[in-house]
Amino acid sequence: MPFLKEPWKKYQAFKPLRLPNRKWPDRVIEKPPRWLSSCLRDGNQSLQQPMNGDEKWRFFKMLCELGYKEIEVSFPSASETDFDFTRRLVETPGAVPDDVFLQVLSPCRPDLIRRTVESVRGAKNATIHIYLATSACFRQVVFGYTEEQTLNLAVECTKLVRSLTKDNPDAADTKWQFEFSPECFSDTDPDYAVKVCRAVKEAWGPSAAKEDQIIFNLPATVELATPNIYADMIEYFCDNIGDREDVCVSLHPHNDRGTSVAAAELGQMAGADRVEGCLFGNGERTGNVDLVTLALNLYTQGVSPGIDFSDLNSVIEMVEACTRIPVHERAPYGGSLVCAAFSGSHQDAIKKGFQNRQRQGLSAEDPWQGMPYLPLDPQDIGRTYEAIIRVNSQSGKGGTAFIVHSKLQLDLPRGLQVAFSRIVQQRAEELGRELKPEEITNLFKKSYFLDETPRFNLIDYAITPDRAPSPAPAALGQTQDTKSLMRIFEGVLMADGQEYKLRGRGNGPISSMVAALKPVGLDFDVQDYKEHAIGEGRGVKAASYIECKPSGSKQTVWGVGIHEDVVQSSLMALLSAASNFITSRPNSPLLKPADAGAVTQDAPSIVSVLEDKANGI
Amino acid sequence: MPFLKEPWKKYQAFKPLRLPNRKWPDRVIEKPPRWLSSCLRDGNQSLQQPMNGDEKWRFFKMLCELGYKEIEVSFPSASETDFDFTRRLVETPGAVPDDVFLQVLSPCRPDLIRRTVESVRGAKNATIHIYLATSACFRQVVFGYTEEQTLNLAVECTKLVRSLTKDNPDAADTKWQFEFSPECFSDTDPDYAVKVCRAVKEAWGPSAAKEDQIIFNLPATVELATPNIYADMIEYFCDNIGDREDVCVSLHPHNDRGTSVAAAELGQMAGADRVEGCLFGNGERTGNVDLVTLALNLYTQGVSPGIDFSDLNSVIEMVEACTRIPVHERAPYGGSLVCAAFSGSHQDAIKKGFQNRQRQGLSAEDPWQGMPYLPLDPQDIGRTYEAIIRVNSQSGKGGTAFIVHSKLQLDLPRGLQVAFSRIVQQRAEELGRELKPEEITNLFKKSYFLDETPRFNLIDYAITPDRAPSPAPAALGQTQDTKSLMRIFEGVLMADGQEYKLRGRGNGPISSMVAALKPVGLDFDVQDYKEHAIGEGRGVKAASYIECKPSGSKQTVWGVGIHEDVVQSSLMALLSAASNFITSRPNSPLLKPADAGAVTQDAPSIVSVLEDKANGI
Repeated sequence: MPFLKEPWKKYQAFKPLRLPNRKWPDRVIEKPPRWLSSCLRDGNQSLQQPMNGDEKWRFFKMLCELGYKEIEVSFPSASETDFDFTRRLVETPGAVPDDVFLQVLSPCRPDLIRRTVESVRGAKNATIHIYLATSACFRQVVFGYTEEQTLNLAVECTKLVRSLTKDNPDAADTKWQFEFSPECFSDTDPDYAVKVCRAVKEAWGPSAAKEDQIIFNLPATVELATPNIYADMIEYFCDNIGDREDVCVSLHPHNDRGTSVAAAELGQMAGADRVEGCLFGNGERTGNVDLVTLALNLYTQGVSPGIDFSDLNSVIEMVEACTRIPVHERAPYGGSLVCAAFSGSHQDAIKKGFQNRQRQGLSAEDPWQGMPYLPLDPQDIGRTYEAIIRVNSQSGKGGTAFIVHSKLQLDLPRGLQVAFSRIVQQRAEELGRELKPEEITNLFKKSYFLDETPRFNLIDYAITPDRAPSPAPAALGQTQDTKSLMRIFEGVLMADGQEYKLRGRGNGPISSMVAALKPVGLDFDVQDYKEHAIGEGRGVKAASYIECKPSGSKQTVWGVGIHEDVVQSSLMALLSAASNFITSRPNSPLLKPADAGAVTQDAPSIVSVLEDKANGI
Repeated sequence: MPFLKEPWKKYQAFKPLRLPNRKWPDRVIEKPPRWLSSCLRDGNQSLQQPMNGDEKWRFFKMLCELGYKEIEVSFPSASETDFDFTRRLVETPGAVPDDVFLQVLSPCRPDLIRRTVESVRGAKNATIHIYLATSACFRQVVFGYTEEQTLNLAVECTKLVRSLTKDNPDAADTKWQFEFSPECFSDTDPDYAVKVCRAVKEAWGPSAAKEDQIIFNLPATVELATPNIYADMIEYFCDNIGDREDVCVSLHPHNDRGTSVAAAELGQMAGADRVEGCLFGNGERTGNVDLVTLALNLYTQGVSPGIDFSDLNSVIEMVEACTRIPVHERAPYGGSLVCAAFSGSHQDAIKKGFQNRQRQGLSAEDPWQGMPYLPLDPQDIGRTYEAIIRVNSQSGKGGTAFIVHSKLQLDLPRGLQVAFSRIVQQRAEELGRELKPEEITNLFKKSYFLDETPRFNLIDYAITPDRAPSPAPAALGQTQDTKSLMRIFEGVLMADGQEYKLRGRGNGPISSMVAALKPVGLDFDVQDYKEHAIGEGRGVKAASYIECKPSGSKQTVWGVGIHEDVVQSSLMALLSAASNFITSRPNSPLLKPADAGAVTQDAPSIVSVLEDKANGI
């Protein structure tokens, strides 16, 4: 505000209650609270376009299916839509499960209370919820009431509700609950709040059983201070309301300072039994506390929330459709980016975590531990692992490798991860956006000629034993047995419409084919070689990865081959690398004419060793 | 997860540190922390479409203008874009204010650290920030390091940074800061975190001055528990790190459990000096803590945050443009619905709060107290009051009245508020959406014929004194003086193209015109009458409101008149009501032929009294 020099000076710090010997910071939450969904009432009242009756109906059904047992369905005295919706719930057989309480809200005005009670007449279970301004600000500015007038009104209205409900013989078929909210509790002198609630409790009369507890809802109608102060006020209330076992202390935190979740959690530690809120935090202004976050915060601590969010995507769809407000991309648990990792180091860590689980043979039922950056198993809320790792120009090898692995079952060697992630990064920079998994796998297939024909196509080949002595076997420390396993590769290669006859000698198929390619100008050493099986049983295939270094070059090229036949898979990988080698020097002549018949005898040491390891195939 | 019966059992509760005699719950935050904006680094790394260099440039400029003095600009070893952006900042004269530190992040790898330091070579002020996995999960799963290896690496890398920066004579022109993050602190054994940081402090060497404090950033890389537990860990760290005055303790909370704001606030109470975060909470997954909320939470407690959010809308625009993620409608302070109220009771309370301020003559500089539902004066962040109260079918009289008052300067009597809000509610229900302020004011003008010609148009009129005795003055307790002020109204009325001559007698213009209308079939009593001035000085006008009850009807109709002449304003209001009366009985004949010349002598009691009060005009 440019016209004020120190504009913050017009605000005053909230004056906290001084609570000696507070107990809540040493407690943890070990059980779920009673939940009250206010989605249909408070949510509805705070939307640009309020939900219509049908939307409320579908939303109500979902809330029941998720497991909510107390649902504030309306503010029936304020609108015909709300009244009619409530009647429709009561009057439609089977609409409300037998164990679900319909809660309705009313101000402390006799005519409105009568109309409110009327709206749930005949319900199996109903909670009448009345609220009254007890904070000095609301009492004075809005209503002009003294403390005494307010207390008297609260008592009168409580007695009215009592006479219309539990003392009313005509309403005996309904199981009644009563809830009173001193508004806004967070701004009310705690002693006065206790005084009013004690008087209300007296007026409502004794509770016969645990489930008859009178509910005192203590709203942070406006969030005014750090959440520890709210917790202090809750602990003070719990300690002073008296007959604690007859009272259910309920929380209703709003999110003006962005700490409603903390307020609800610290408030539970401070003794509260019940929490009111909305799915994804709908509600006036910044909204009510988010029930999804609260429930899944419990879940990830090993505590059942009693609410089933295993299909969170459907919940998101319903909430977005009815409120016309999208769940934010970064909303805890529900946000579309929440299980996503773009940065290289995060992706790498997550990939290692998954590999670790796999190595240990852990399933979805085993403890979720040692998973970097993922406090929740995405599968538990209906997300797939593929959605986690997302790739843009800032991502590293780990992310792309994860996607190639999860989509194509290919476990790339580290060097290939690095090489391919460069290709991906370049593409992401060109497009200036994230790449989808399909785009990445397509790029992989294209880069290594998995679907399309490579520049070189092996039309026919044979690998036959060659018992002639190897030129320098002793130097490699090979035995006589190894010597006897030298191979001759003979084959026909198609390249750009032309046939080349090849012949080469080595201690296995790869080295002999490498030797055979030298006369046509493809002169390179094999630097790295790796293969693994894909799948199991009959459908099993072999995946081969070969890194080649063209002679005289520092750059290496990679090739990938997949085939049922493990030998052919490795030869295809070699040709894939050769194609990339040619592509990397586009201006050179494709191939030298083949010096057919001449057997070259180049057997690069690393391949020899690798092929030995692979039993000389 | 349908295939698991009790899926939450795979999670374990976080094991909190047992902190005896904690001090933070008794503290309040009385000064702003040192802020570190991570918008350009962490934010950038977590976006589907990372910011490009130009976007980062504009964003950086805005951060400086808002008042940030420490800005983490990049992760230069991870991407060319980031390295180039950092160089551009350093090399462009005047790009970085003299008191702003450029912070750059690097993993603990010597090659990457060298590249990172290189990126800020020549900067006036630079902070080298290195991070290392200290939590058991990260150490073991991701890196395979022991505690000892980790500690040694931290020390080695610190020494490397030292040799490249403060011990490097070639880098003496730069003022260097050093920051170390044990990752993820929230999941690290607190004693081990202290041990590593003590060793790092030793390796970095002594601080010459307060501004040379070594920065220990204690990230909740993943938020794993309630925020009080994080605060306990921070307090423990602060109490045990040693040489406390040489150390700046920094917080970096993420929002996985939706409590990052609380964690940052309780962490400050626990002793932290500095907070890292992003505007509107951008960052990996659920994002970093939101710097806007933290700053304005301080502001509304009367503490200057040192950051200027008086034009929050521009900040929102920039963040949305660069991140391509919208600020959520209910985000604290920034959300579009946050200063809005739809429900009747909220609107009514806010309206009363504003009226109260007005009555007390309070300006924008005066203490912001007694304002229900508005913890912040919307004007302080560049919002207008008109945006606060928004009207849909769930809204009551208060909201519409507020809008009519703020847009048309009309202060409607309560009955008219009720009557008009019914018209608004009906219209909102028809449209199934919120009504804009212009729609509401247009509806008001149309309903009360303020712009258009009413059904009845007063072409000419005169009001003359009549000294004849009133028929029953004694019954009304009127004095002789009052009697002598009786009036004769004579005028010509146009209605649907036809002229009617009128004549009537009463104790003022309204009552005499009411009497004059009776012969033409407009037979009603005046129930309520109110008028007030609009504006001041030369341009002042009178607004008149009249509630009429047609004889034999229970329904009343309202009329509104605005005119420079106070008498004509009241007559126009009467004709406006008469037009509505006719509209409400569309099938009746318009008017009876005027019984010209006959003076009726009906003077409804309430009008007499009101006109007496208004000095018989």
